[in-house]
Amino acid sequence: MSRRVITGFSNPTVKFVRSLRDKKHRKREQRFLAEGLRLLTDARAGGRLPEILLMAQGREAHPLLAELEQAVSAVGGDVIELPVDILAKVTGKDNPQAVAGVFAEWDTGLDQIDRAAAPLWLVAQAMRDPGNLGTMLRTADAVGAGGLILLDDCVDPFSVEAVRASMGAIFTQGLAQARWDEFLPWLRRAEGQLVAASLRDAVPYRGAAYAAPCFVMVGNESRGLPEDYELACDLRVTMPMKGRADSLNAAVAGAVLAYEVLATLEG
Amino acid sequence: MSRRVITGFSNPTVKFVRSLRDKKHRKREQRFLAEGLRLLTDARAGGRLPEILLMAQGREAHPLLAELEQAVSAVGGDVIELPVDILAKVTGKDNPQAVAGVFAEWDTGLDQIDRAAAPLWLVAQAMRDPGNLGTMLRTADAVGAGGLILLDDCVDPFSVEAVRASMGAIFTQGLAQARWDEFLPWLRRAEGQLVAASLRDAVPYRGAAYAAPCFVMVGNESRGLPEDYELACDLRVTMPMKGRADSLNAAVAGAVLAYEVLATLEG
Repeated sequence: MSRRVITGFSNPTVKFVRSLRDKKHRKREQRFLAEGLRLLTDARAGGRLPEILLMAQGREAHPLLAELEQAVSAVGGDVIELPVDILAKVTGKDNPQAVAGVFAEWDTGLDQIDRAAAPLWLVAQAMRDPGNLGTMLRTADAVGAGGLILLDDCVDPFSVEAVRASMGAIFTQGLAQARWDEFLPWLRRAEGQLVAASLRDAVPYRGAAYAAPCFVMVGNESRGLPEDYELACDLRVTMPMKGRADSLNAAVAGAVLAYEVLATLEG
Repeated sequence: MSRRVITGFSNPTVKFVRSLRDKKHRKREQRFLAEGLRLLTDARAGGRLPEILLMAQGREAHPLLAELEQAVSAVGGDVIELPVDILAKVTGKDNPQAVAGVFAEWDTGLDQIDRAAAPLWLVAQAMRDPGNLGTMLRTADAVGAGGLILLDDCVDPFSVEAVRASMGAIFTQGLAQARWDEFLPWLRRAEGQLVAASLRDAVPYRGAAYAAPCFVMVGNESRGLPEDYELACDLRVTMPMKGRADSLNAAVAGAVLAYEVLATLEG
């Protein structure tokens, strides 16, 4: 096992990793940063190893970290030890986790999705909030979905905030990005029920005739789904809205619906 | 109707409003800022008028804004017109909403809660994320809950992020802040069923014997609920967790549970 020790902030690797906090650099490099042993362990379980593993000096020893370091070394990854204050600057956090990793982004084409692999899929259209996107991934994990399909101009799923909010699900859930006019023909090529919450010609969300593979779609945080997207759905459902606001957070609406679908399919 | 025009950034009122973005100042002044005509209209509908109403020059006229200005003036509030770039500095946003208001915080003692007013209440313990807290308020609105009770060290519900995420529900939902050792005796003084998601001696969340008034409690984002809080519950329920992470976002878990309670109580 080889391990480099870096002590200076001007080191090119340190500068490179730090630059990934910037969206422009992240996009250009197709690399992103994930922090924390929990997240990195989930990544490894999902078959993803960091290209660069950063470990703070003075960290506590942990068997999972030792295994991770070995695994990264074994595939020729870069293992770096550095002072905690430099790691703090790299990650932009005052109290950084003791370990972080740089991962290569992966292919998120629709052809990565095997719809037969799960009874339930989540779909988000033009979702702009990285916390919501990460939360959707986490919900997908919890309901046993196959993953999350991002339509149109969604926020970057590899952003620091989205990765953090996903609590590791970014590494274990299927993830695809597509335009609506790619997605709909793809969906119609095989079995698949497209479902959305809607007020147009909709049935109550409880007891609706959900069928696997079921694709639960939520729309943009402020505008909701475009009308033609709703009309293309196989099933439109309403959820009770008893208050003044007549709306739910998009990730919350998706989760309530997904749990209802799960109960029906398992019922 | 009197209206002041402010054109300088050094104006004391401008400085005062701007200082409210800082938590320390907000706490000292017991005042908070809310942005956008929608939010301010919800506030008015909930019986809350801003003490200071800020309107950007060059804004579009709107009947609801005209009514709001009249209402604020009628109770002796301060109505201010200012250039959009100064409003941007005040609110800290590049593209500020055309209107903002400074509100006095209100009493959030437990005695503000009339449990008979609603069949369902949400309770959050040590919730640290302002987006989650605002989302819980929004969910409370949607499920027709009476409001949200914040236990122990929660994030400030009057923070900019929480107010924004609440989508106006901060103004229309009941809101109380209490320590656990105040809350539990208060709860036990009258009817009220305390429910939480738990793995300890729990029943499936679907079909559980929810009863009004039902208090749905969720715990801290990383630690969950303390064990003694769970044990004090009248009903502990489990939700399916089919993935690796074995957890849900706190606001999502609260919402899925709240919708289940609603369906049971209305069933």
